[in-house]
Amino acid sequence: MNLKIAVLPGDGIGPEVILQAKKALYAIGEVYNHEFVFEEALMGAVAIDKTGNPLPEQTLNLCLNTDAVLLGAIGDPKYDNNPNAKVRPEQGLLKLRKELGLFANIRPIKPYKALIEASPLKREIIEGADFTIFRELTGGAYFGAKTLNEEGTHASDLCEYSEEEITRIAHLAFKSAQKRRKKLTLVDKANVLETSRLWRKVVQKVSEEYSDVALDFLFVDNAAMQLILNPKQFDVILTENLFGDILSDEASVITGSIGLLPSVSLGEKNALFEPIHGSYPQAKGKNIANPIASILAAALLLEHFGLTKEAHVVYKAVEKAIEYKVVTVDLKPDSKFGTNEVGEFVSNFI
Amino acid sequence: MNLKIAVLPGDGIGPEVILQAKKALYAIGEVYNHEFVFEEALMGAVAIDKTGNPLPEQTLNLCLNTDAVLLGAIGDPKYDNNPNAKVRPEQGLLKLRKELGLFANIRPIKPYKALIEASPLKREIIEGADFTIFRELTGGAYFGAKTLNEEGTHASDLCEYSEEEITRIAHLAFKSAQKRRKKLTLVDKANVLETSRLWRKVVQKVSEEYSDVALDFLFVDNAAMQLILNPKQFDVILTENLFGDILSDEASVITGSIGLLPSVSLGEKNALFEPIHGSYPQAKGKNIANPIASILAAALLLEHFGLTKEAHVVYKAVEKAIEYKVVTVDLKPDSKFGTNEVGEFVSNFI
Ligand SMILES: CC(C)[C@H](C(=O)O)[C@@H](O)C(=O)O
Ligand SMILES: CC(C)[C@H](C(=O)O)[C@@H](O)C(=O)O
Repeated sequence: MNLKIAVLPGDGIGPEVILQAKKALYAIGEVYNHEFVFEEALMGAVAIDKTGNPLPEQTLNLCLNTDAVLLGAIGDPKYDNNPNAKVRPEQGLLKLRKELGLFANIRPIKPYKALIEASPLKREIIEGADFTIFRELTGGAYFGAKTLNEEGTHASDLCEYSEEEITRIAHLAFKSAQKRRKKLTLVDKANVLETSRLWRKVVQKVSEEYSDVALDFLFVDNAAMQLILNPKQFDVILTENLFGDILSDEASVITGSIGLLPSVSLGEKNALFEPIHGSYPQAKGKNIANPIASILAAALLLEHFGLTKEAHVVYKAVEKAIEYKVVTVDLKPDSKFGTNEVGEFVSNFI
Repeated sequence: MNLKIAVLPGDGIGPEVILQAKKALYAIGEVYNHEFVFEEALMGAVAIDKTGNPLPEQTLNLCLNTDAVLLGAIGDPKYDNNPNAKVRPEQGLLKLRKELGLFANIRPIKPYKALIEASPLKREIIEGADFTIFRELTGGAYFGAKTLNEEGTHASDLCEYSEEEITRIAHLAFKSAQKRRKKLTLVDKANVLETSRLWRKVVQKVSEEYSDVALDFLFVDNAAMQLILNPKQFDVILTENLFGDILSDEASVITGSIGLLPSVSLGEKNALFEPIHGSYPQAKGKNIANPIASILAAALLLEHFGLTKEAHVVYKAVEKAIEYKVVTVDLKPDSKFGTNEVGEFVSNFI
């Protein structure tokens, strides 16, 4: 197979972890005779620094014309603590999601056997947990109108949803549930929010086409609690953009480290693969960032293009790294292995 | 002391748990010579059933003219799963918060020694955790304009905040931090939301008056993760309405049961005390609901009126109940004690 992949290393530890993901893909390409052509482009704070624009035209065009996008991480504290910054790295990511129409962000959550002890949760709580979060990614308060009055004393964010936006991701989530344990939980705040009531109504309607899937509802406050009390109750979780952002980061504790979780963002035509962690600027250049989430993002990419066998080879290699404790300090505080060594181990194993 | 207390038992298990809180207050009154006069009124689904209005005029007037309000819980699934219901129990609670001007909801989080094992989190994670969440309660998406178009295919919720709304709760939170470990963490989503950027700016400004308090910032997705990874890092958490709703329910897992957590909601003139759990309709009338959160809400009420000694007697009695394992099934699955027995034990101990 021939694949053209846009690579956006981004900020902070992004470039370091993405390098390991590319190494894994190169290894797969060699062994299984595929050609992966990578084209790098700027996005995030690094793009602002060089071009003034967090998503330069060139980057967007590249992403629109490749088979897939592989993203590192974006974000820089110099923008976070400056409420007056007009241009911010995150705008680049949000614009990219919107322009590529990436309406569904999918994050599988499942603890690794060898890492059960690394979780802050007790073994009996997480052993056997296995669920997937479907987060709506191009709607809600992320993209609604924002206002700030002239005096800078009053601000607003508008959360909006349409039936269509809810319907298309609901179908994806129900289809996934059909292939799993046939349970879908819609997380919302329908006792307070109008948009949540629309979600509930539309998802109920879509569910009529999936009579083999059991549908239930959970308020987001309760869901945030249930994820920790009893994660095994979940199979597929479906939710809107901001709730999905919060719950999927929270759910990462089940696996012991956010450094292990990849996600895929899907649109009608495009797909973007990334680790769910942030740019972790404090770790930049120190060779301590965990590359596994990025490597697994590459595996999701392989799976997406039907290269199931190849993807499993990558999963296997990652499992071995974890089993042999060739892992970074987030997973083993006294580890002597860094980003590079973990990445080397994985690509050598392929 | 003479106190007139409005009692709103509400829905589900509300009446059962509130009864135990009243018993504790009666016991305190007898021993320490205070007169607590309770006046009951309707709110929630039970008020809709009887009057068509989730917060009848009479209830509101009573609450406006008493020293404090003691609330059970509200909510009924028959409204939750009906996105077309025009009148809902929650509207009563939200209106009450607004009319009484209860802008700050304060939830202390601290595990009980005897219950460390009841938490899904490991002992070393939660032992020593001790923080308080300040949740803004009368602003944000809860109270902004809501729309649903005629076809029922498009909905919106507006999240709004003003400098004034942020300033007043920030002062409360900083003052609390000064009496504690002098650390305040603002939780927001300033990389995406305009209202969050306003929060960050205003809280930074207020912080200048509290130079002895260290201020830091956390994105809400990261905060949801950090609460579980390392809850000991927190002292005072300050956040907007919806984030506070989600994070404080999530934080309840640290204590082993949401059935243990009370909260107080404060305004310029009024104060409302309640357990943070919901109406738990499945448990209604079964004598299995945990009354401790309600009893502790009564203790917070005593403290609020300067009856510190009396409050500590209640805390002590609750600790003893937990120590002697006179607790409900949520804390001890094979317990033979119910709501009533736990309440009896506590008031007898006073
Ligand atoms: C960087 C930020 C804008 C982003 C989001 O909130 O969507 C990130 O947290 C994520 O989850 O991908
Ligand atoms: C019942 C509901 C409206 C309420 C809220 O979301 O504020 C509850 O969850 C709470 O936290 O008091």
